[in-house]
Amino acid sequence: MEEKLMQLRELLGEVADLRAASSVLGWDQQVNMPEGGAEDRGEQIATVENILHKKATSDEIGKLLDDLEKYKDQLDPDSDDARLIKVARREYDKQTRVPPAYVSEFARVSTVAQSVWEKAKAAADFEKFRPHLEKLVNLRRQYAEFFEPWDHVYDPLLDDFEPGMKTADVQEIFNKLRLEQVELIRKISEKEQVEKSFLTLNYPEKKQWDFGVEVISKFGYDWNHGRQDKSAHPFTTSFGLNDVRITTRFKEDYLSTAMFGTMHECGHALYEQGVDKKLNRTPLADGASMAVHESQSRMWENLIGRSRPFWKYFYPRLKEIFPSQLGNVDQDAFYKGINAVEPSLIRVEADEATYNLHIMLRLEIEIALMEGSLEVKDAPGVWNEKFKEYLGIVPPDNGQGVLQDIHWSFGGFGYFPTYALGNLVSVQIWEKMEQDLPDMDAQIEKAKFDEILGWLRDHVHAYGAKFEPQELVQKVTGSKITPEPYIRYLQSKFGEIYDI
Amino acid sequence: MEEKLMQLRELLGEVADLRAASSVLGWDQQVNMPEGGAEDRGEQIATVENILHKKATSDEIGKLLDDLEKYKDQLDPDSDDARLIKVARREYDKQTRVPPAYVSEFARVSTVAQSVWEKAKAAADFEKFRPHLEKLVNLRRQYAEFFEPWDHVYDPLLDDFEPGMKTADVQEIFNKLRLEQVELIRKISEKEQVEKSFLTLNYPEKKQWDFGVEVISKFGYDWNHGRQDKSAHPFTTSFGLNDVRITTRFKEDYLSTAMFGTMHECGHALYEQGVDKKLNRTPLADGASMAVHESQSRMWENLIGRSRPFWKYFYPRLKEIFPSQLGNVDQDAFYKGINAVEPSLIRVEADEATYNLHIMLRLEIEIALMEGSLEVKDAPGVWNEKFKEYLGIVPPDNGQGVLQDIHWSFGGFGYFPTYALGNLVSVQIWEKMEQDLPDMDAQIEKAKFDEILGWLRDHVHAYGAKFEPQELVQKVTGSKITPEPYIRYLQSKFGEIYDI
Repeated sequence: MEEKLMQLRELLGEVADLRAASSVLGWDQQVNMPEGGAEDRGEQIATVENILHKKATSDEIGKLLDDLEKYKDQLDPDSDDARLIKVARREYDKQTRVPPAYVSEFARVSTVAQSVWEKAKAAADFEKFRPHLEKLVNLRRQYAEFFEPWDHVYDPLLDDFEPGMKTADVQEIFNKLRLEQVELIRKISEKEQVEKSFLTLNYPEKKQWDFGVEVISKFGYDWNHGRQDKSAHPFTTSFGLNDVRITTRFKEDYLSTAMFGTMHECGHALYEQGVDKKLNRTPLADGASMAVHESQSRMWENLIGRSRPFWKYFYPRLKEIFPSQLGNVDQDAFYKGINAVEPSLIRVEADEATYNLHIMLRLEIEIALMEGSLEVKDAPGVWNEKFKEYLGIVPPDNGQGVLQDIHWSFGGFGYFPTYALGNLVSVQIWEKMEQDLPDMDAQIEKAKFDEILGWLRDHVHAYGAKFEPQELVQKVTGSKITPEPYIRYLQSKFGEIYDI
Repeated sequence: MEEKLMQLRELLGEVADLRAASSVLGWDQQVNMPEGGAEDRGEQIATVENILHKKATSDEIGKLLDDLEKYKDQLDPDSDDARLIKVARREYDKQTRVPPAYVSEFARVSTVAQSVWEKAKAAADFEKFRPHLEKLVNLRRQYAEFFEPWDHVYDPLLDDFEPGMKTADVQEIFNKLRLEQVELIRKISEKEQVEKSFLTLNYPEKKQWDFGVEVISKFGYDWNHGRQDKSAHPFTTSFGLNDVRITTRFKEDYLSTAMFGTMHECGHALYEQGVDKKLNRTPLADGASMAVHESQSRMWENLIGRSRPFWKYFYPRLKEIFPSQLGNVDQDAFYKGINAVEPSLIRVEADEATYNLHIMLRLEIEIALMEGSLEVKDAPGVWNEKFKEYLGIVPPDNGQGVLQDIHWSFGGFGYFPTYALGNLVSVQIWEKMEQDLPDMDAQIEKAKFDEILGWLRDHVHAYGAKFEPQELVQKVTGSKITPEPYIRYLQSKFGEIYDI
């Protein structure tokens, strides 16, 4: 068994190396590549991904996994080895169920769809994008068929992002959440709105960069195993556990974009930097799921970065850096401004109280498209109806409506719910952490984050992808993913700000 | 035949993609990578290189090349297809002659040797490095055996860098050159030395960067298909023909380092940016050889960048940028200062008149080591003797002597002569270009480089690696590589500067 395990590790190590190589090519493409290199880079990534796919689905790995199956009972089921075999098996089975012809066809269709979507969005012209979205919906339904039987056609898509999670679970969670969030927003809308115009003065980029670096250095971002660059769309990427990079972007006329974006990506990076190094070069060197990953980014961005204790330390610093912009804004006003609730059209700019509603309407549309209960041509109408119902406003055109996100253009159905689940998980873990670290607020007020990061490392990060998201959340908090903590959090935080 | 050619192109395209991927990993390592990522990056590059090697030496490619052999006569021997088959055949044969066991052993030994060399150089301790160099000499002699029969044991090593060239050719060229260069230096040493202390004042990095960018933009460096970054050792790398990047480094107390280094790397990059795009993703998307590559870098660095016409345009600009440093230095004094001849210990800092002598002594030692007429333990002594004979000085220790270059530590025997050959080729091509573009000096005085670059594209760059270096030089200049033009150039240029 030892020898077979070593062989498996060796092969999975090569797969991990190729995945890292592909990620470096992708990072470089978004951060450094001159425009003229785009076409060649496409070929290079395709070649590496193609070899990667062949290696990951090779008979050699399949055979080793079959052989190792027999020894499974000799291992502690929570040991690194047992979990490695389990996760490798899961990924191998998923990938080998999908025929190569489908993979090529899907890659072809989604590449075209993405470039059409870009133009369609700019022109707010849904009809242009419609036939491509129809193809993608069909292809994704076909994809689901490879995994029959299932309880719901959406399950296999969700499983790609949240291993083990079911559509019914998500729906149950979201049904509770929606009612509460819609009600909260209604109450807020009746109150006096908070002032936030000071956030849209001129904030020079270099100073924003320096402040961001100061904050995430305090958080514990490890610059010896990472770096920060600029890119059009912020992201976190890792090339193994020892090189975890983040990117950020700046708006000189809006302070929040880079400030909270940097904290958000840093949260993702802290997760990967914290995975037990023993798991490096294996499929376990990853987050447990997209939702758990998002719980970490949202925790540092919102539960810490948008909290009163955080700004007790950092607001005097920020005022030093931007004296003319913030000279007349006191700490309380600043706190309220960065937490202003305002139903808006664009998901990525949404505040904590409205964000999940943006997700829910997307999920409902995705599920209906997959079930076939909604036709693609009717999606814009449904989008606008639900928008009105949940957020009280209607997009003026489809560019700011149904076409706003890139996800559908690459066929990424199943992705959206992870954002909202991440919010829920962040508070669920936070509540548990508060019990273990009762003076957490006092620590944050001093910009001391080592105990918090240490707790997260021990209880969440170190495990990497050993556990499925529901398993992990259960292990950390004592229950599966549940909306109550998040609802409590929203009601308490915004109840105080808006005097509800 | 068409179909087989297409299959070959497809396979070679994948090899090219993997080579590009490996180059991106290497570029990133030297330009961006956080220190902590080094070990993982080593694994990633090794995995990609390993797959690359397997693909490049696959039976599939061998079979296609065998099949295509039969159709060779149907093709114009200078056509892209005929040359593609020829070059692919050459590379395939070279790579398949070397057993995988040798490749691994060599990689292992040279990796260790490099890290020992670094320490040995810092400590000026040749004994520490000696056993590793002995192993590498033995391994390289073994390497030569794979290619028997040959005229000289050094031929197969040279051939890796200069396809088709023989040791005897290089020796003949260098024997003529050495006498003339030694004599020239002797004459210069009897003359009054030129003033150059103004080059070692304080030159802020940012201003040096901007000036370098201004110069290479005028040269015609295509920023849409390239970029410049900083690295410890300047280099040029390409990821296909559409993304050709350069790096540079700065010394704030020495103006020449970045200034001429930037022009040098730009010269390399202009070559690759100028290769016919039809050759992209094939083994022909490369320079003809290291020497021809170096001829292009040295041309832009020396024949243009260290010429009087160049500074007629750029010196006023440089004075504007550095008024306090250069205010009292006139154009003639500046020109002489940047061309000052002074025998020195370190190759990379050598001037045009002494540079080749640094190369020759290395080549003579390499050849003697390979022949077995010199033992590794005696190399430092021979180094110092030859240094005294050629350059009139003796290194104070082995760190500044036999240990100064990295090349031997990675077993790169055969590499050094290409530097000197590149110098010769640069002037040989230049003389031909002067005939075709009689007002070249007047153009350079106006910083107009489009005709020069256009000529080089048409006569040199566009061909990529279609021709062997001697073939290409013959084609461009009417004769094989010969030292006379370079000797004439040195005598004329330095005769004028030193009034000889």
